[in-house]
Amino acid sequence: MSSSATNTATYKFNHTMLRVRDHVKSIKFYEEVLGMKKFHESSGSDFTNYFLAFPGGFGDKADASDEEKAKVQLNREGVLELCHNHGTESDPSFKGYVSGNEDEHKGFGHIAVTVDNLEAAVKRFDELGVKFKKRPEEGRMRHIAFIYDPDGYWVEILAQQRP
Amino acid sequence: MSSSATNTATYKFNHTMLRVRDHVKSIKFYEEVLGMKKFHESSGSDFTNYFLAFPGGFGDKADASDEEKAKVQLNREGVLELCHNHGTESDPSFKGYVSGNEDEHKGFGHIAVTVDNLEAAVKRFDELGVKFKKRPEEGRMRHIAFIYDPDGYWVEILAQQRP
Repeated sequence: MSSSATNTATYKFNHTMLRVRDHVKSIKFYEEVLGMKKFHESSGSDFTNYFLAFPGGFGDKADASDEEKAKVQLNREGVLELCHNHGTESDPSFKGYVSGNEDEHKGFGHIAVTVDNLEAAVKRFDELGVKFKKRPEEGRMRHIAFIYDPDGYWVEILAQQRP
Repeated sequence: MSSSATNTATYKFNHTMLRVRDHVKSIKFYEEVLGMKKFHESSGSDFTNYFLAFPGGFGDKADASDEEKAKVQLNREGVLELCHNHGTESDPSFKGYVSGNEDEHKGFGHIAVTVDNLEAAVKRFDELGVKFKKRPEEGRMRHIAFIYDPDGYWVEILAQQRP
């Protein structure tokens, strides 16, 4: 391939970025409630971006070099980037971020996580005190749930196997 | 594993949902400019959700059964769901969706696509008339670009290999 060529078949939908008010709470949620792992972070003068993903595709090798990790990181899909603007977590005047689902500023809707067993996942979320936007038994769509992340973003939960 | 067990290590960050004003324009953009493929759609009474992804992981088998496709679809990552509320594309009073980057309603930031060759990808985008939020040569971060999708959502473009 010449240096001027590009092949879109090699492109990857690498990540989705959400701003978060309190990175500690958000990383705790995505790691402890959902099972992602933070694998990288990078900072500017007044912000830090945290990169998380589910295991697999990573080669979670403890001995991987930074170069190896970076290569995997940029070649995989399903990465979540959490952008923390320093200070929002302790600023009482900070109004919070919009989820994208409010009437006045609709746009982004949600991210979705597929799970091995919806009923068991929901039971575990209940044990962990997770807040639901919609439980599976509510409404007509019994095969999906929506939970809130710490900023109020919607996370759809659905089974990997159709019922 | 018992029926009540769930293992978060099997979870997948399956998709990200964005509302779009005009599904025809948006699907054209994500397919023809970025190289994704629409592989599924589902409708309610007044909306249709379109699911797109980059090839690979799919097994783009022409003879795959719907069941096989559904299984792959729910077990992979990097899916983009575009939600079209019927009629917005021809409604002059429709104000459009927010990108999540406006001062008054910040939240979601962007999706990111990694490419084989940033310079070549940018050249191709220019040939296709794509609008840039930030070209690689603008600002300090020379290794990334941001383009606009038809609704004004930001799509970060960065190389799969660090320079």
